[in-house]
Amino acid sequence: MKRTAFFISDGTGITAETLGHSLLSQFENIDFDQVTLPYINNEEKAYDTVKRINQVAAKDGTKPIIFDTIINHNIRDIMATCEGFMVDIFTTFLKPLEQELQVSSSYTVGKSHSIVNEAGYKIRIDAINFSMANDDGGRVRHYDQADIILTGVSRSGKTPTCLYLALQFGLNAANYPLTEDDLEEETLPAPLKAHKDKLFGLTIDPERLSVIRHERKAHSRYSSPRQCQQETRGAEAIFNRENIPYIDVSELSVEEISTRILVQTGFERRLRS
Amino acid sequence: MKRTAFFISDGTGITAETLGHSLLSQFENIDFDQVTLPYINNEEKAYDTVKRINQVAAKDGTKPIIFDTIINHNIRDIMATCEGFMVDIFTTFLKPLEQELQVSSSYTVGKSHSIVNEAGYKIRIDAINFSMANDDGGRVRHYDQADIILTGVSRSGKTPTCLYLALQFGLNAANYPLTEDDLEEETLPAPLKAHKDKLFGLTIDPERLSVIRHERKAHSRYSSPRQCQQETRGAEAIFNRENIPYIDVSELSVEEISTRILVQTGFERRLRS
Repeated sequence: MKRTAFFISDGTGITAETLGHSLLSQFENIDFDQVTLPYINNEEKAYDTVKRINQVAAKDGTKPIIFDTIINHNIRDIMATCEGFMVDIFTTFLKPLEQELQVSSSYTVGKSHSIVNEAGYKIRIDAINFSMANDDGGRVRHYDQADIILTGVSRSGKTPTCLYLALQFGLNAANYPLTEDDLEEETLPAPLKAHKDKLFGLTIDPERLSVIRHERKAHSRYSSPRQCQQETRGAEAIFNRENIPYIDVSELSVEEISTRILVQTGFERRLRS
Repeated sequence: MKRTAFFISDGTGITAETLGHSLLSQFENIDFDQVTLPYINNEEKAYDTVKRINQVAAKDGTKPIIFDTIINHNIRDIMATCEGFMVDIFTTFLKPLEQELQVSSSYTVGKSHSIVNEAGYKIRIDAINFSMANDDGGRVRHYDQADIILTGVSRSGKTPTCLYLALQFGLNAANYPLTEDDLEEETLPAPLKAHKDKLFGLTIDPERLSVIRHERKAHSRYSSPRQCQQETRGAEAIFNRENIPYIDVSELSVEEISTRILVQTGFERRLRS
């Protein structure tokens, strides 16, 4: 079965898309064609959007599902005329919240993903710069400024996780690879020894690692099952011996790895997204 | 006025947090203490969470606001006993969606931010690696593989935007800085000339640029208002002359810049978050 879903907003559309995507993922047997329409912030764009939705409705022979977070009443009224099934995110929840909080909401557009304050902006940019500069063990002299240092074998997901931790949580996240020498000797690299309280390990199923490395260097020693098995075994031995907390990332997305690290370490985020 | 808000999930909590944050930002006069509790995925954790919420309720002297996306019925039932004001995100919308779609939802935990498929995972990691390797004009020989190349003066937000485009949309996003020589001569740097269809410019209010640069190098020529004004004027002159689309990022978050770039260029994302 195929249906079309629209995520529509007068801002970035991130909220409509995040919630809509979560809800639709609960209907596994339906194949949703997903369209995000951000910045629908005037009546002309609203009429165009209604036209587009109606065309899809005619083509699909069924109502598109519309997740919207539009705040402006005039634009909402225009959208309400479309041939879609409306999931009205804001109105549904704002009324009961207004009652509970005993104040009117401001009905202001684009509040949630705009620059909240100078301090938050600076924390985020500094964290991204820190994580870029301290990627892959390239530099170790600023580890005193790190909030967290990820370690693990090559291609265990250290870099994307660091960038996510910086971008979403404002954390100064460095990462340092475990090399063959470290893994054979099962010893913690010297630059990490002074920062054991900031270390977090990533490990991965050797078969999955082999597949990922194969994409990079096919049929190499680097990507061979045997090498991947030796390396992951060595990494886990180091983590266990040195009491470094770690997780197996084989089945996890970058978002899940990052969230689990925060839960497991208790490290506080510096930013709220 | 101060209230406490909890974002509670049996998965990462990203959906609860994103929607909750959007809704709360509509109540500007209330100061919300915000707490995210991910992976509340068994009854023991649910009871602990209820206890924690009730303690906050007693301390605040008012109901905490609870945004939850818990799927499991037993855990939901336990959560429902707490002294909070429940904003029940999933149940509210799943029932009407089931009716419209004429299927039952799967009520499966952690669908939305898990690894969706191998192809998507690879696109994302490749995009991040590309963007890291092609940051700040460090390398230009792979621009044929770029989806987009951002350009602008130093500290105009190129790097964070590229990383966001890679992480959220799976785009190969490179960036190349405009140097003083380029800006004085008002000419496009040679490595960019062959890729004009991929270029997008970032510009920024010179006063804001001066503040940002001041954080990096206080009282320098680099951060002086005069220098910032000359550089931004030069950058805009190049964008206008060469017909390069651009936006002023002064008041925009990384999310807003990235979304607007997609809208303005019509470039298709390779990933859905």
